[in-house]
Amino acid sequence: MKSHVIGIDIGGTKLAAVLADKDGNILQKARKPTESEKGPQHAVQLLLGMVDEVLGLSGLSREEISGIGVSCGGPLDTKTGVVYSPPNLPGWDALPLKDMIESEFHIPTVLENDANASALAEARFGGGRGYNYVLYMTMSTGIGGGIVANGEIYHGANDSAGEVGHQILLPDGPLCGCGKHGCLEALCSGPSIARRAQEAITDQSNTNILKLAGGQIDHVRSEHVLQAARNGDALAVALMEETAYYMGWGIANLVNILNPQIVLLGTIAVAAGDLLLTSIRRTVAEMAMQRPSEAVKIMPAELGDSIGDLAAISLVI
Amino acid sequence: MKSHVIGIDIGGTKLAAVLADKDGNILQKARKPTESEKGPQHAVQLLLGMVDEVLGLSGLSREEISGIGVSCGGPLDTKTGVVYSPPNLPGWDALPLKDMIESEFHIPTVLENDANASALAEARFGGGRGYNYVLYMTMSTGIGGGIVANGEIYHGANDSAGEVGHQILLPDGPLCGCGKHGCLEALCSGPSIARRAQEAITDQSNTNILKLAGGQIDHVRSEHVLQAARNGDALAVALMEETAYYMGWGIANLVNILNPQIVLLGTIAVAAGDLLLTSIRRTVAEMAMQRPSEAVKIMPAELGDSIGDLAAISLVI
Repeated sequence: MKSHVIGIDIGGTKLAAVLADKDGNILQKARKPTESEKGPQHAVQLLLGMVDEVLGLSGLSREEISGIGVSCGGPLDTKTGVVYSPPNLPGWDALPLKDMIESEFHIPTVLENDANASALAEARFGGGRGYNYVLYMTMSTGIGGGIVANGEIYHGANDSAGEVGHQILLPDGPLCGCGKHGCLEALCSGPSIARRAQEAITDQSNTNILKLAGGQIDHVRSEHVLQAARNGDALAVALMEETAYYMGWGIANLVNILNPQIVLLGTIAVAAGDLLLTSIRRTVAEMAMQRPSEAVKIMPAELGDSIGDLAAISLVI
Repeated sequence: MKSHVIGIDIGGTKLAAVLADKDGNILQKARKPTESEKGPQHAVQLLLGMVDEVLGLSGLSREEISGIGVSCGGPLDTKTGVVYSPPNLPGWDALPLKDMIESEFHIPTVLENDANASALAEARFGGGRGYNYVLYMTMSTGIGGGIVANGEIYHGANDSAGEVGHQILLPDGPLCGCGKHGCLEALCSGPSIARRAQEAITDQSNTNILKLAGGQIDHVRSEHVLQAARNGDALAVALMEETAYYMGWGIANLVNILNPQIVLLGTIAVAAGDLLLTSIRRTVAEMAMQRPSEAVKIMPAELGDSIGDLAAISLVI
């Protein structure tokens, strides 16, 4: 009877609600802008309406839904279901999101931070299928991560485990968004790659990166660096090699600490493919210990744009 | 009826077998030198005899023993129970230790690497009691580690998880025993502290470290540095501060990645106490993210010399 689940994916710019069967097939979807400037109450009302919408579209009753999974930016508390001021959701301060959803629908609701939920989705439905020890790392605006061991998210003491992007590699390095210096994220996130490119480009630089950015140095983004590197631009290739070195160093440390069977790298690594992955793998082989190094594969994440929906429903399947 | 357990602790210099009740009270002990130069068959024969010895002393029959726990240097395979050439046990190459013990006694036997087994012992009987997420780090000849989550050892893909001493902090730093450069172990193990002291002492140094080592630079050990630092020796204090900085940096990374409730530090940290711990804690607070940093305590390990016996029996209690 309780044959289906609902997933809610909360981002800083868009909200999604989906209805899926127990095999992870998504049957109905609703999408709306978060309009985060209107505050959390507004967004939650939108979400509640979207849940009703996917239920209505499916023709199913609430009694046929076994659970609601909610993927949201952290920090948050998975036990109490309270969200604590994610950077991308201003005003979501100590918001009892799980209670708000459960009191409306009377369906058991599971709240999880988006990196962990995405890791679980990759482990269940993506590149981590068949592996017991999966490490997933986002590589976009930030570098987040999630650890899945034997099908379960590794939460740690207060749901903060997996902050793999904030291991510090260069204590005297560039300032990170977290307030520390030289975190992996401050070297290899999209904005960090762009910043390193902006710093490297001078009037004397023989590079196409600036041209791809419309000639404006402050418009340079990681996509331009990647595109130029694909065309063999020497500076861009060097920047991508540097990115791969830092990623490889950070992943080597994680391989020694966590001994994963597979490391799945998101967004930028998916876009760059072997341009990054070949050098990352070589660096990990050089810097990690032999035994855990032999046990690990380093691969692009597989779920692409569908990861948000699958992240949410994987929490309740 | 199966009211007791047996523990076997295999070190490079000594062997131990103990018999304990299910509460972890050690009732009988046997100790012998490993005589590792005589090879694994000799040591295993000694061990089998020592198991018989503690059984005989206890007056219990084999039928009253529920399990045998074996703590041994890694690498090893916990599933198959095979030991693969630990650095301190020359010739123990693909030794089917679990099978050798089980075929003799017909008692279920669990093999585990010593750092993981020690972590479990600290979690069950030592400083980790009452905590769900425990990270134990040895700090002696090497820097090993074990991760215990919800009472279970985190093994990873091939029993290599927890190699926290081989996270690389300084890729251009000193050579580590593992063959890489700038691992935490190559900076903060006992021999590494001694090496840094030997490099720092010149004819012009105003330090007592050399005197404590009998005036011979190659006799300087970490104990001399610690003793001099206790007496306020400026060079020794600086060396201990440097040690605390690297330990704090490495632990901050582990706090971000693993989000432990407690980090327990062995041997050198136990001996040094606040001389190291105060600076380690300050560095972790500076370098780790706020949320996981707030959740963690950094404490000396509690089990001292009894950890080997308790490590072995904790595997089968």
